Amino acid sequence: MAEMRKPIAVEDAINHVWKHRIAGETEHVSINDCDNRRLAEDIVAKHPVPPFPKSPYDGFALRSADTAEANRNNPVSFKVVEHIGAGQVPEKSLHKGEATRIMTGAKIPDGADCVAMFEICQTYEKDNHSFMSIKRTMDSGQNIIGEGSEVAEGEKLIEKGTIISPGVKAVLATFGYSQVNVARKPVVGVIATGTELLDVGEELQPGKIRNSNAYMIASQIIRAGASYKYFGKLEDEFDASYNMINEALEEVDILITTGGVSVGDFDLMPAIYEELGADVLFNKVAMRPGSVTTVATNGQKILYGLSGNPSACYVGFELFVRPVLQYYLHSEHAFLRRVKATLADDFPKPNPFTRFVRSYLTYENGRLHANLAGMDKSNVVTSLAHTTGLMVLPGGTRGFNAGDEVEVLLLDDQQGQREFKAI
Amino acid sequence: MAEMRKPIAVEDAINHVWKHRIAGETEHVSINDCDNRRLAEDIVAKHPVPPFPKSPYDGFALRSADTAEANRNNPVSFKVVEHIGAGQVPEKSLHKGEATRIMTGAKIPDGADCVAMFEICQTYEKDNHSFMSIKRTMDSGQNIIGEGSEVAEGEKLIEKGTIISPGVKAVLATFGYSQVNVARKPVVGVIATGTELLDVGEELQPGKIRNSNAYMIASQIIRAGASYKYFGKLEDEFDASYNMINEALEEVDILITTGGVSVGDFDLMPAIYEELGADVLFNKVAMRPGSVTTVATNGQKILYGLSGNPSACYVGFELFVRPVLQYYLHSEHAFLRRVKATLADDFPKPNPFTRFVRSYLTYENGRLHANLAGMDKSNVVTSLAHTTGLMVLPGGTRGFNAGDEVEVLLLDDQQGQREFKAI
Repeated sequence: MAEMRKPIAVEDAINHVWKHRIAGETEHVSINDCDNRRLAEDIVAKHPVPPFPKSPYDGFALRSADTAEANRNNPVSFKVVEHIGAGQVPEKSLHKGEATRIMTGAKIPDGADCVAMFEICQTYEKDNHSFMSIKRTMDSGQNIIGEGSEVAEGEKLIEKGTIISPGVKAVLATFGYSQVNVARKPVVGVIATGTELLDVGEELQPGKIRNSNAYMIASQIIRAGASYKYFGKLEDEFDASYNMINEALEEVDILITTGGVSVGDFDLMPAIYEELGADVLFNKVAMRPGSVTTVATNGQKILYGLSGNPSACYVGFELFVRPVLQYYLHSEHAFLRRVKATLADDFPKPNPFTRFVRSYLTYENGRLHANLAGMDKSNVVTSLAHTTGLMVLPGGTRGFNAGDEVEVLLLDDQQGQREFKAI
Repeated sequence: MAEMRKPIAVEDAINHVWKHRIAGETEHVSINDCDNRRLAEDIVAKHPVPPFPKSPYDGFALRSADTAEANRNNPVSFKVVEHIGAGQVPEKSLHKGEATRIMTGAKIPDGADCVAMFEICQTYEKDNHSFMSIKRTMDSGQNIIGEGSEVAEGEKLIEKGTIISPGVKAVLATFGYSQVNVARKPVVGVIATGTELLDVGEELQPGKIRNSNAYMIASQIIRAGASYKYFGKLEDEFDASYNMINEALEEVDILITTGGVSVGDFDLMPAIYEELGADVLFNKVAMRPGSVTTVATNGQKILYGLSGNPSACYVGFELFVRPVLQYYLHSEHAFLRRVKATLADDFPKPNPFTRFVRSYLTYENGRLHANLAGMDKSNVVTSLAHTTGLMVLPGGTRGFNAGDEVEVLLLDDQQGQREFKAI
């Protein structure tokens, strides 16, 4: 009855899936709708920043040479020939003994080579003209933000694949990207299988549980920056399941099913892969939870057969689906960031296989601490609510103690890394 | 001309604003639309989990007492009286010598008190009946996930104010929350002021720069979980500006303007606050960047006058606006998480006032490192693109060196903390 499956190592399983990654298409969206999307091109400075020399303060622009004789006992006077605010363009070039009253951010007038802040100037009126005087010397270039002093034209500022954060958006606006070239979101199909599943709105019935995996995965897909399409839940009945999966494949870039991948009498997925003519990459991984995770390909499309167990399903998504989605979205750092942390709790269970422990991360005096998010049984859904990382306990290890160094995959991190392994 | 303003300490400024926080209304949304919203109520287990005793494996449910005599040389046989998959309900109670073939997740039949995995059982047919035998004893309760063993009915699982993550959504689905009670998103109005501002789609013109602050703040508002309404940009002209701000106040919960808060000749916001009859809480803060940050209240509504400088604007939002938005969204951890980190770069500048340095965070051997995101001048927009944290350098300190311990506010963190100060 139960076929014998040969488990493969987690790294090998990831490498198998990774070979089938594809980068998605790109599209232009309004800058108003670009938040949290991924850039599909490098952002290069289209012009120098600032695009003109400007004043960092409110004050007077003048020629530093004219202040050469100024000192505490010898104020030097200037005739104020113009008054400009930010956005106004100075029309007058300065000549010897002339100054321009200038506001923060305004363009420095021709002829001027420094700005004296209001605080060190005296102003007065004489013969219906404005004058200012100064009692100290100024240096050429003093208090002037030079053209291109922040960014030179053509400088590469942001890498393709970066998630558009508030700071990235500010740069896009600065350089006039009213339309932004972003990675198109892949559409990930979701199908839950299992006769035991009730819809979320249904009353509990004996022997049945509500379908939580489909909702959880939809949320994981959103967190990964992709879109989902939910096709509903299937009873453990071959023909209807096969037809639904076959149709769904036409409409999505990637398809995820939950449940039905074990070797139980009602686990239909192996037969469905066979009928589809899909190429099964693996159907058992030396890991806990999620050992029955199955991945197959059908043409260019990847079919994920995740466990029906919520925690196994969750881990299977983060390990095998998320990196492929990040690559589709043009990220150069497609894998979850994996960092060292101090284990905050005892974890006495031995680990015959690589174990991914639901954890939440805290900081203690600059050190990252990994805390157990709850009972680590694969069937415990509630601990997932507090999970912000997956602790990676290598296979073949005995228990771990509070204070031990462990590695953790960060789930809320937006940076990622280039490879699965620890950096 | 330039009024003298008295700067107040950052903590005092935050406390002033904090007094005017209000918690927003709540609303129900479909579970399909609840991602990244904040829960407006505690989530309590509506039923035990699992709701019935179930099997963690594929195998045979039986009575452990019947295995008392079993050993390697004495297999004990059972008649298989029923065959149930997950979601099917056992109809037969087990009597002496009877077993039920049971799949993972299925309900344990009455009478049975343990499950023997397939791997330790032999099966055979005799007289048109299915039988199984076992060569070892079983304990009562062995391989049974007891009713309520994960969660007892009534247990508080998730705190009000928590952001709905994939794991939270799984819990919501498990307990049948097809509609979810979430905090209503506050609507934050955004108005950019400054004659120097061009629209993002406009060609550069002499003396002018593109409006980046409004786009950046819109993105910060989204990151904070709120909604924005952009009212456009205003020239430095009193009547039009006053009217726009007055009208905008009617339509939003909180209003942010950028620019016009300094003491330059074209800075109109102080006069506009006066004309509105708004109560100015402070108009100068002992911090860099963002010293001219102004906050006023108009009835129940807070008006933020943020600096026109992109970095000052950015910092002003995160310090003074974000916590108020988090409180509005019912978060109990409204302030940015503030943690210790190792400074990765030299920062030789002295800090006469509290300085918030744009930083990005990395991990080295389990320690958090704070790296400078770029030149730390308040006018540098491009470094914001790489900013994931704000280093807090206390006022009155001289420079810092690589390796020093510093404190950092985490911008991408979803947990937050209860107070502004370091924990």
